[in-house]
Amino acid sequence: MSSSSQLQPVLDRIDADFDNSLERLFALLRIKSISADPAFAGDCKAAADHLAGDIATLGFATEVRPTAGHPAIVATSNGNGGAHVLFYGHYDVQPVDPLNLWHRPPFEPAVTDHADGRKIIVARGAEDDKGQLMTFVEACRAWKSVTGSLPLDITIVIEGEEEIGSKNFVPFLEANKKDLHADFALVCDTGMWDRNTPAITTSLRGLVYDEVRIKAANRDLHSGIFGGGAQNPIRVLTRILGSLHDDNGHITLPGFYDGVKDLPPDILAQWKNLNLTPESFLKPIGLSIPAGEKDRLLIEQVSSRPTCDINGIIGGYTGEGSKTVIPAEASAKVSFRLVEGQEPAKIRKTFRDYVTARLPADCRAEFTDHSNAPAIALDWNMKPLAAARRALTEEWGKDAVLMGSGASIPIVADFKKTLGLDTVLVGFGLDDDNIHSPNEKYDLRSFHKGIRSWARILSAFADAPR
Amino acid sequence: MSSSSQLQPVLDRIDADFDNSLERLFALLRIKSISADPAFAGDCKAAADHLAGDIATLGFATEVRPTAGHPAIVATSNGNGGAHVLFYGHYDVQPVDPLNLWHRPPFEPAVTDHADGRKIIVARGAEDDKGQLMTFVEACRAWKSVTGSLPLDITIVIEGEEEIGSKNFVPFLEANKKDLHADFALVCDTGMWDRNTPAITTSLRGLVYDEVRIKAANRDLHSGIFGGGAQNPIRVLTRILGSLHDDNGHITLPGFYDGVKDLPPDILAQWKNLNLTPESFLKPIGLSIPAGEKDRLLIEQVSSRPTCDINGIIGGYTGEGSKTVIPAEASAKVSFRLVEGQEPAKIRKTFRDYVTARLPADCRAEFTDHSNAPAIALDWNMKPLAAARRALTEEWGKDAVLMGSGASIPIVADFKKTLGLDTVLVGFGLDDDNIHSPNEKYDLRSFHKGIRSWARILSAFADAPR
Repeated sequence: MSSSSQLQPVLDRIDADFDNSLERLFALLRIKSISADPAFAGDCKAAADHLAGDIATLGFATEVRPTAGHPAIVATSNGNGGAHVLFYGHYDVQPVDPLNLWHRPPFEPAVTDHADGRKIIVARGAEDDKGQLMTFVEACRAWKSVTGSLPLDITIVIEGEEEIGSKNFVPFLEANKKDLHADFALVCDTGMWDRNTPAITTSLRGLVYDEVRIKAANRDLHSGIFGGGAQNPIRVLTRILGSLHDDNGHITLPGFYDGVKDLPPDILAQWKNLNLTPESFLKPIGLSIPAGEKDRLLIEQVSSRPTCDINGIIGGYTGEGSKTVIPAEASAKVSFRLVEGQEPAKIRKTFRDYVTARLPADCRAEFTDHSNAPAIALDWNMKPLAAARRALTEEWGKDAVLMGSGASIPIVADFKKTLGLDTVLVGFGLDDDNIHSPNEKYDLRSFHKGIRSWARILSAFADAPR
Repeated sequence: MSSSSQLQPVLDRIDADFDNSLERLFALLRIKSISADPAFAGDCKAAADHLAGDIATLGFATEVRPTAGHPAIVATSNGNGGAHVLFYGHYDVQPVDPLNLWHRPPFEPAVTDHADGRKIIVARGAEDDKGQLMTFVEACRAWKSVTGSLPLDITIVIEGEEEIGSKNFVPFLEANKKDLHADFALVCDTGMWDRNTPAITTSLRGLVYDEVRIKAANRDLHSGIFGGGAQNPIRVLTRILGSLHDDNGHITLPGFYDGVKDLPPDILAQWKNLNLTPESFLKPIGLSIPAGEKDRLLIEQVSSRPTCDINGIIGGYTGEGSKTVIPAEASAKVSFRLVEGQEPAKIRKTFRDYVTARLPADCRAEFTDHSNAPAIALDWNMKPLAAARRALTEEWGKDAVLMGSGASIPIVADFKKTLGLDTVLVGFGLDDDNIHSPNEKYDLRSFHKGIRSWARILSAFADAPR
């Protein structure tokens, strides 16, 4: 029996069981699995155990395996032969600060009404990536419960350090290689084109994330006694960081754009047709003018062009009122989104050299490496893409778009390098999901139709010519 | 009987009672009177009550009087006629952060050994200004206890908001004018020239302290989705603040140096002779090269030239690890030390205009005014100066220096404007006292000889021709 003949009862089952799917997602969302903060290490372990326990109930051979950091889950279930896919997700979430901007406690999930009437699931991780990974788990559950099996062989691997750069997961992949073989990988950590248009992401930007700390005097100083005579590390830091962009929004690091190619004319034409406007993209976040390179389209600025952002800065007195201090040090977190042709190690070195060359006498800089991922460009012609695209189009009633993403999912490069696998990136996030921000949400519709989409995609993969 | 014939027993009394003087200072240092933080308002009140109680025991008619902020103390005692002085000090102290850099709890004072063997009093406020103001109170105590009276009429006024700009104290001066008349004012909140050389401060820099907050998007954004397309307020802030100085250390605000005069040649020659070297001034704080205007002496940079310092900056994610956020806002505290000829209101407006003119589309700036004080230049020929100088020279066995200070004591301008009083500024602080920093200290010798100095100065004032 082809899996497609079993699809409709599976979809019906998903609809009928949706309240329970939501309850299972809520249980996962309640666990404070913030990977960046060591204080939450126990919660990360709890999230891994909880999720592994749930997946085991579907008949997967499931293990929580240690890494040098937070643990990972490996779960395998044989289907009806044919293709074998490796599904990847992450159970860790971003920190929640600034907490005072949340409208409700970030780890007490609830379905609420969005301003425009949409039903949304609100919680840290509602989208990224707990909500997204549960769309896949729930699709598997529906297949198992209706047909007693899966339409193809599936290995699920879920890590707990994606939000902090997957440093320990990459060696884990290498060490667990034999249990992670498959025909290709699936990742559910990306978005739709818009609320009604499904998408498959075919390129991802890379990420170099560095921290720089400028040190001057051996202690904090009084600006009345030393002001004018002593180096101020905030002055030094702002002077250097303030020079990273020129008046046209170009990044000034020497050689930064070396190897960066323009989009092929046909892709550029296709992207122009998508008509990403400041009105549609920036207005919802309170902005109106693209802030990037002045000679590029907005869609290029946010997906195919490299960028530099200062993600955090701190130094001196930042409490209420005033203090006439010249601090001993100041620091900033600086990240670069990279595109195909740029080498992360080279960009990092260029940045550090740039800072170091601009340090005045008496100042020194210390650097900390936070992430290091190259850009990804997938093969638009890889076979599973067509099947996934067809399935998405059927579910959403609208052609699925092949799009570039401005974000980074470094693991995709590691799947290729370590496991030899290409990846199909399908996800149901929306631009207004507030991921990494207060009030993260996932549309209830994304969660429901996401589960249905995966049910269809699994079927399409099983039936597709290999 | 002239007061000078009574001086020696008073000095002997100070020596004999010194352990008790120290204990009384410790009792004041234990009170957490941090004026900047509303959480410590009760402690500020407690410090005022405690100090007023102590001063009342010396026979001063003493009152704790409310202001619109923390209360002030007014205490008066008639002496043997003749001159009438108004002594000013402040019981409030700076915040203590970063607390982890203190070697002992900031409000548990102790006498410890400095690295070079000096005995030092360590606590927040040990110097600024509790230690300093207590030198005067203890000198009065010694006069009273030995002679039963003071050598001249004294009014003591002590405020609790000096560290936050004395905003409520200035109207208080106006409202309490009739109780604050005197021939001239005394302030003990300045330093010695060096460890062995007493000094009278004859000029003070002014202070404009502003806070700027740059706002962009209506929420924190994910740099993967929006990076390149959305304004980053940290980028905007660093770009603007990083341009406030040029390569030669000059401040770039248009018209900033208008009205600033060079030192008269004779003063410049005198200052050159003081030989303030990077070796003596910067090496103890771990620096070696003057950071100010390249065409100025170090002593000019720190005392007679105007400056700009960024005292604090914050924005985005500043916790452990990394977060790919584009924050909705970023802010900085920026202060300017001003010299004679510069108008605070004009400098503030110039700064705000400079920021506003450089804001890109989609960004706006909000400003908060923290202080606003003009520079002070005292009359080097005012009569009490000679008497004070002679008394200091006798106590320390070395000629007292008339010097300019880089710091700001805004109240001195208000004494002139509101009460018509000139001020004599005498203090016993040292450059390594770490005021406003962790591990604030006051040399035990400063405290002891400071009390003796005031005892001599009061006598000299009483005997001086008026």
